[in-house]
Amino acid sequence: METTEQRILAIDIGGTKLAVGAVDGEGRVLEYLRTATPHPGVTDSGEMIFRTLLGLVGELKTDPAEFAGVGVGCGGPMHWPGGVVSPLNIEAWRDFPLRARLAEAFPGVPVRVHNDAICLAVAEHWRGAGMHTEDMLGMVVSTGVGGGLIVEGRLIDGRTGNAGHIGHVIVHADEPLCACGAVGCLEAVASGPRLTGWAAEQGWRPGAAPDQRTGRELVDDARRSHPIALKALSRAGRALGIAIASATVLCDLEVVAIGGGLSQAGPLLFNPLEATLRERVGLEFARSVRVVPAALGQEAGLVGAAALIVHPERYWSAKD
Amino acid sequence: METTEQRILAIDIGGTKLAVGAVDGEGRVLEYLRTATPHPGVTDSGEMIFRTLLGLVGELKTDPAEFAGVGVGCGGPMHWPGGVVSPLNIEAWRDFPLRARLAEAFPGVPVRVHNDAICLAVAEHWRGAGMHTEDMLGMVVSTGVGGGLIVEGRLIDGRTGNAGHIGHVIVHADEPLCACGAVGCLEAVASGPRLTGWAAEQGWRPGAAPDQRTGRELVDDARRSHPIALKALSRAGRALGIAIASATVLCDLEVVAIGGGLSQAGPLLFNPLEATLRERVGLEFARSVRVVPAALGQEAGLVGAAALIVHPERYWSAKD
Repeated sequence: METTEQRILAIDIGGTKLAVGAVDGEGRVLEYLRTATPHPGVTDSGEMIFRTLLGLVGELKTDPAEFAGVGVGCGGPMHWPGGVVSPLNIEAWRDFPLRARLAEAFPGVPVRVHNDAICLAVAEHWRGAGMHTEDMLGMVVSTGVGGGLIVEGRLIDGRTGNAGHIGHVIVHADEPLCACGAVGCLEAVASGPRLTGWAAEQGWRPGAAPDQRTGRELVDDARRSHPIALKALSRAGRALGIAIASATVLCDLEVVAIGGGLSQAGPLLFNPLEATLRERVGLEFARSVRVVPAALGQEAGLVGAAALIVHPERYWSAKD
Repeated sequence: METTEQRILAIDIGGTKLAVGAVDGEGRVLEYLRTATPHPGVTDSGEMIFRTLLGLVGELKTDPAEFAGVGVGCGGPMHWPGGVVSPLNIEAWRDFPLRARLAEAFPGVPVRVHNDAICLAVAEHWRGAGMHTEDMLGMVVSTGVGGGLIVEGRLIDGRTGNAGHIGHVIVHADEPLCACGAVGCLEAVASGPRLTGWAAEQGWRPGAAPDQRTGRELVDDARRSHPIALKALSRAGRALGIAIASATVLCDLEVVAIGGGLSQAGPLLFNPLEATLRERVGLEFARSVRVVPAALGQEAGLVGAAALIVHPERYWSAKD
């Protein structure tokens, strides 16, 4: 089949790693390469990151002339659909014209850039836990809490390309203050750093080094039945349950797929989430919503980036 | 112009009144008739309501043969798009096949039935406060709290036609219990009956008859600076602000238009709403959201019902 033979250059850009791959028209990752994101801290470092990225693409075995398009997931915020990016965790890129630069490097084929959390949601809808559903929220619970919204089978971008910001749905009445400036956001409760910070305040691992107080350590301790670690995951699950209840009634969702580091906690997170969700949805149509772990692994970002090119009718609402 | 000459039969069905009208292709209401919804309490009363409705249509001066379609807004819940309705406030209609019965009565033209709150939101988008916007939430704050969601210029129905249920977004942590069975819904705080009930508990109009404790009386008392009435509107405004913040980040909204009896309170409601909203949205894209009073009056339901027929490409996503 022709779509199977199609080759898409997929790129996933985060503060920790750069990943590139060749993806076919069915969403299979044929090649995958990654490297650490450089953080050189020199004037020219924005260019240097871009050169590193192109260098990594050059190491792919697929002939660049074969690529029918370039799909990119990148940390936000960004101007969408223009693809001028200012990723929170890549300080050297402030208003970096990523889409335009890639269009210069790969002339004659479509180049599309979207938020990395959007790409993960799109990947889960196309090839993961949300396959065969029309109305899905894909979430990432990690250093931040992000998401993407698929309604009636299509990615919802909204006016500025920012629809799906589930991390800033309000879940608490009077605290805590979120990095965005608002009070009571989901992200201010359930992101890895905020959750480990809360656990530390409660007396979890006093005196431990920062790298021994990560979300992963918290999940490990919860598995060993550490009471504060369990309470922290329960607190995150409760906040997630409230936000998901709100999103479900507003968008008539069928499935919510959750990925990211914290989702590795499994039932220790999903059980309190589920209990809260059931308390918080009453209307018949909403009670059938299902919350499931994301099905794709570390290649999900590339799959979603490729989807922007393979299925623009579903995943790319912009006119250009 | 051809669309101006088009005639749509528009119907608005609530627990208190039935309204019918002839609406043109530009959303102008050319004729409008209303009558009290009968509540006869006999076995045949479902049929009797339907006969009353058809009788009212027969009183319109427009020749029924001129109607190019029939658009209906009706109280929920309903099966959508089938139009089998069970309006909470019309006990004689339980699983009443409204759409099928109207299709029999008006053969050869499209007949479409949607939730009455959806029709109000659609009307505000087509001809009211949301004209020229692509991303809008229309809300009704009255006996209940309902809404409809327009994203990227189109009504979002969702999987079961129930998207837009802003009244069941979670705004409170541990109380109050909502009629839907969930805890902390917006409707459980800000609907007219819940708000007047709360005010009465605080000592508002002790011993007054029920008809002297309506939302309208509460608003009137607030205008006279009654401290509990003011506090009640502030409480509703705060709950609305939280729900609107959540909807804005999730759906990247530009405008929220609020109608219904309680919105008549004006700044006494909108000022605390606005103050809370500003506390609860931090992300740049969301801070530009505007909350405005609905622009259309009592004919809004008919305008929205007609829109289901005139602009199905925007307001009717169902395949049949």
